[in-house]
Amino acid sequence: MSSQVTIKDIAKALGISASTVSRALKDHPDISRDTKDAVNELAKKLHYKPNAVALSLKSSKTNTIGVIIPELVHYFFSSVISGIEDVAYDAGYNVMICQSNEKYEREIINAQALLSNRVEGALISISKETNDYSHLQSIEESGIPIVFFDRVPDGFDSDSVIIDDQKAAYNAVCHLIESGCKRIAHLSAPTTLGIGKFRYEGYREALKAHNMAYNEEYVVVADSFDLAAVATRKLIQLPVPPDGIFTVNDLTAVGAMKTLQKMGIAIPEKVAIMGFSAGSYSDITTPTLSSVDQHGYEMGTKAASVLLERIEAKRNGPGETFYVDTNLVIRESTKKI
Amino acid sequence: MSSQVTIKDIAKALGISASTVSRALKDHPDISRDTKDAVNELAKKLHYKPNAVALSLKSSKTNTIGVIIPELVHYFFSSVISGIEDVAYDAGYNVMICQSNEKYEREIINAQALLSNRVEGALISISKETNDYSHLQSIEESGIPIVFFDRVPDGFDSDSVIIDDQKAAYNAVCHLIESGCKRIAHLSAPTTLGIGKFRYEGYREALKAHNMAYNEEYVVVADSFDLAAVATRKLIQLPVPPDGIFTVNDLTAVGAMKTLQKMGIAIPEKVAIMGFSAGSYSDITTPTLSSVDQHGYEMGTKAASVLLERIEAKRNGPGETFYVDTNLVIRESTKKI
Repeated sequence: MSSQVTIKDIAKALGISASTVSRALKDHPDISRDTKDAVNELAKKLHYKPNAVALSLKSSKTNTIGVIIPELVHYFFSSVISGIEDVAYDAGYNVMICQSNEKYEREIINAQALLSNRVEGALISISKETNDYSHLQSIEESGIPIVFFDRVPDGFDSDSVIIDDQKAAYNAVCHLIESGCKRIAHLSAPTTLGIGKFRYEGYREALKAHNMAYNEEYVVVADSFDLAAVATRKLIQLPVPPDGIFTVNDLTAVGAMKTLQKMGIAIPEKVAIMGFSAGSYSDITTPTLSSVDQHGYEMGTKAASVLLERIEAKRNGPGETFYVDTNLVIRESTKKI
Repeated sequence: MSSQVTIKDIAKALGISASTVSRALKDHPDISRDTKDAVNELAKKLHYKPNAVALSLKSSKTNTIGVIIPELVHYFFSSVISGIEDVAYDAGYNVMICQSNEKYEREIINAQALLSNRVEGALISISKETNDYSHLQSIEESGIPIVFFDRVPDGFDSDSVIIDDQKAAYNAVCHLIESGCKRIAHLSAPTTLGIGKFRYEGYREALKAHNMAYNEEYVVVADSFDLAAVATRKLIQLPVPPDGIFTVNDLTAVGAMKTLQKMGIAIPEKVAIMGFSAGSYSDITTPTLSSVDQHGYEMGTKAASVLLERIEAKRNGPGETFYVDTNLVIRESTKKI
């Protein structure tokens, strides 16, 4: 036993965090004298050795949560990870992150890595390419609890944490209407993707609720900076161009803005722009971008909390779906109501 | 033996990727008939069972590389990770990412996670807070090779992959001078940080090379969006304000730009702005931002390649320092030469 004592064992016994123990052992100035004494006393009693961490390999618990995420470069996903980490580290778990890079093949390797590293639970958002889920079923069949977040596959009895895309899009388009837009276009993702479908449905619902006609010409599948440039140019060249554009994500909104600016069209006076996801771009652009805040951090904390409840058997029974609230962030690219 | 056969074993034996084997076993349409036959034949011969992945725990090799990175939210660091992953996955290694979130305590836990997950090598960029390295020494002492990148601690005999900050800053300031700036300010990081020190030195060196006077008033420690706003306002209110600003990073440059725009000062005509790191912001701002491209992706591929050479004992002897080239990306925030 004594050779396997770790910082975590001491932390658990004293009801303090592992990092506090680590710093107490190093005589860090931030740690109180009392805590240091308690830690050192217990460390001595348990024959703790600083290099014991290497020996903890023999213990059967890894205290590790695995995360599979499509793309780290997105502000939304890195916010989710921050939320996951804050909950996990506080509870004494490590977080191991794998990036699928939106590739199905990598996601398979990621799933194998989670298994071979014996994670105690998995937080997964699937790649755009993924439509066969057997690699995820392998995790489930190994008895490792999964909580899906943001992008959720069908056919799993797992918990999931998502936003209500349709409602968020509805609110975004309502804002455009209520601030005076009469002809609103939508740059959409393919409707084969959940976000494409639900954000489009929210757009239609908002038009309907305000008795505004739906115009097919105003809906274009364009979900990137470059596609937005082409689509925006076409929209503006229509006989009756739109005076508001709702885009499926912020980068698309920025593409639309840059194109309008090149064409000398005033934002928001001539055309208002509403993005989706309030990423790191929305503060930086000129004008700043109105958008939907998806609260990635809260999604991360919720997903991690639910997973820890499953790991620690505080939650049982069938999987549930949890919704994280969204809200509009109104900046300069839309008119004031 | 037969119970431990994994997809990776089959992949290795056939000289193809693990994901190809996985898909071949699933009769995926993208995989050729010949490959499927070869995979299925070998799988049968080796008594491969689909759930063998769970059993591979018993094997001593994890084929996993661990990464400790300060902040995923930075475009530079997520680019580095893409580079690391492309090299690692191609070579049949998984990548496990841990984020220190710029916190020393988390970095300790990250290091423990790498050890307890038995990674075969580590790629590490240290947090801003870290000045005690015993957690990293534990990794080194366990015989796990480390390659440091971007932020490198002193006192390790490990390989490191960095950029030449001083040279990059020198080139950036030379561009400002050669495009007509006569009075160049520098928004700097604290010079206790390597990047603060070397970028400042490069700035001074460029002034000297062009026989331009060094003016203490023009150098302000300000390395964030908010600090840049305060610093820029002060600089512009000087009796003789600068006509060019070189900032230690892009977000600081954006803070300076936004402040100049609020004050009605034309960029680059009245004041030119040069950032550092060519992140995701530099394309998005109006005007677009001239900056130093740090080639994060290349840094990642180089660091991973060196690490794999160490793991596979193709590289021996003392640690080396490798430099990744940088180059200037000239956009709209500086004048043309």
